[in-house]
Amino acid sequence: MSEALAEAQKALYLANPNPRVGCIIVKNGQAIGRGHTQQVGGPHAEVQALADAHSQSIDPAGATVYVTLEPCNHTGRTPPCVDALIAAKPQKVIVAMIDPNPLVAGKGIERLRAAGIEVQSGLMETEAVALNKGFISRMTRGLPWVRLKIATTLDGKTALPNGTSQWITGALARADGHHWRAQACAVLTGGGTVKEDNPTLNVRDVQTQRQPWKVIVDSKLETPLNAKLLGGIEQSGVIIFCARLQSAEQLAHAKALRERGVEVIEMPNAYGKVDLPKLFAYLAQERHMNEIHVEAGAKLNGSLLREDCVDELLLYYAPFFMGEGLGMTSLAAIHSLKDHPAWQLIDQAAFDPDIRLRYQKLLK
Amino acid sequence: MSEALAEAQKALYLANPNPRVGCIIVKNGQAIGRGHTQQVGGPHAEVQALADAHSQSIDPAGATVYVTLEPCNHTGRTPPCVDALIAAKPQKVIVAMIDPNPLVAGKGIERLRAAGIEVQSGLMETEAVALNKGFISRMTRGLPWVRLKIATTLDGKTALPNGTSQWITGALARADGHHWRAQACAVLTGGGTVKEDNPTLNVRDVQTQRQPWKVIVDSKLETPLNAKLLGGIEQSGVIIFCARLQSAEQLAHAKALRERGVEVIEMPNAYGKVDLPKLFAYLAQERHMNEIHVEAGAKLNGSLLREDCVDELLLYYAPFFMGEGLGMTSLAAIHSLKDHPAWQLIDQAAFDPDIRLRYQKLLK
Repeated sequence: MSEALAEAQKALYLANPNPRVGCIIVKNGQAIGRGHTQQVGGPHAEVQALADAHSQSIDPAGATVYVTLEPCNHTGRTPPCVDALIAAKPQKVIVAMIDPNPLVAGKGIERLRAAGIEVQSGLMETEAVALNKGFISRMTRGLPWVRLKIATTLDGKTALPNGTSQWITGALARADGHHWRAQACAVLTGGGTVKEDNPTLNVRDVQTQRQPWKVIVDSKLETPLNAKLLGGIEQSGVIIFCARLQSAEQLAHAKALRERGVEVIEMPNAYGKVDLPKLFAYLAQERHMNEIHVEAGAKLNGSLLREDCVDELLLYYAPFFMGEGLGMTSLAAIHSLKDHPAWQLIDQAAFDPDIRLRYQKLLK
Repeated sequence: MSEALAEAQKALYLANPNPRVGCIIVKNGQAIGRGHTQQVGGPHAEVQALADAHSQSIDPAGATVYVTLEPCNHTGRTPPCVDALIAAKPQKVIVAMIDPNPLVAGKGIERLRAAGIEVQSGLMETEAVALNKGFISRMTRGLPWVRLKIATTLDGKTALPNGTSQWITGALARADGHHWRAQACAVLTGGGTVKEDNPTLNVRDVQTQRQPWKVIVDSKLETPLNAKLLGGIEQSGVIIFCARLQSAEQLAHAKALRERGVEVIEMPNAYGKVDLPKLFAYLAQERHMNEIHVEAGAKLNGSLLREDCVDELLLYYAPFFMGEGLGMTSLAAIHSLKDHPAWQLIDQAAFDPDIRLRYQKLLK
């Protein structure tokens, strides 16, 4: 199963919005077929692995199939994998985790068993779950997995007082940041960051066949037409969420942005800002986004934390103090040290000279 | 040698101002004597280990002696260890590191060799050095090793806006903090912290036979006579460093503090503050202090960093954001992200739910 997980890992930047799945077919102690989820619309891992065996003229009948996610039994963009498996007549299928997709959720395993194939499940389930947090979140909560990335100094500063933030962290940490961008369905930022830093939000330092969507939270629709992140709109769509558009000027700007290929979506809350919880529900349920990677300024970071929209923190600490400078989040003061939202450290890694700490929301 | 280092570790809270040294005597493949540095004035590790062998009526003649620091050849508070070793007639002495004390510095090894004993040195030197950073610093630089401890939130806040800081970190991290206090010759804080937090600065959560000195940097001599940290003055002396005392009121307060057993020392710089570099030179050279553990507020932390007095950072990050709150250091803004003092991560450890990061000054 660890080899099947390694196969799934190959789909990390690729599979979205599908889950990352790996499959290994073993016969007489030899791996005779390997596969992982291809880009959306392409074959799933099991079908890839069966094709791999067939391409070597090896018959998978009687083999054991290791697959990191329960094979699907429904027709989506591709035919059901269980049909392909049943036709191939393996002796046994070993599954790491049940598919959280309510359309599958155990039915794939039932179909295999009904066809006389022995099925085991739960082997290396934790690792399989970790690989598909976003897909599981979307299927079970109707929300994407939201990862907030911040690069900061030891004293929690993200930019010089004049706004300069290039660069707080070193080249290795920045490359790792791109590894996380590449996994996401979308990179999300705020209108303030677009105006002040004018980032491209592209995936650069790692190889990928797919650029994530770009999502901008921009209540007053101030993203300029010449913003750098509109540059790659052919490779990766841009969605701007704003509050209610009112002035003629705003409406004209929305029109110009739309003509430029940008989707402009009004999603106001009662306070004249963007309704953030609704935004994420929309991205999951309407746009099938699994993982959202946030790189924003203190203001939007603060709003996202306050409105409980963040599932994971990806924090890079550079090894120096800044003293005066811009902070990580604009949260109002908490009232007591006894009662506050807390996070659980899930891993730590050095990217010389920086350190990365990852935290997950602590469920009390 | 790793067993000798484990012996030395037992002297961690005890040996100051002497180095922490461990010794194991091995004969016919058996450890026949073990020892570590005792409290100041007590026997050194080698003498302890020889006594241990003798107490079991075993003759150390012909044995191999493993000792983490070169044996001393001078008479300090105790007679030279080389004499005791030569008298015991071991075949071989293996030393982890040369004694940085200029009174020894190789002469101990020379004396052993002159007496016909085989000597090797350098085995597990790195580990031996790490155990005695403070002693080495004092011997080679005339300065103590200064460790700055800060407990902070993920966003670099150390207290609520109203000053409340009890507690940012959890019980495990706080106990670890006491482990570091216990190793220090002195715990240093600022007058502001004494007035606002009124800490005892005692070692509590770990077992120790020795309480470190308490050192207060208090330019205007505002430490009140009823400050909690004066409570244990019988177990651990208190030194207050101030700037030039001028008013009759200040002089009277100094007199009252001295009557209470406190040492009040004027050490002004040109700006009417305490001369921090001079303070540390004094603590090393006049008071034989190896390691200073700093727990102070943003202001003193900032001054210590600005004046390049800090050798090591001991940072505990609690897993939450505070938003508004008091910061880690009051440093003026840096001008560029290209040129600033930086630190090197030397280790990381989880103290659930917190994480500890240790940094050492990066020498460019």
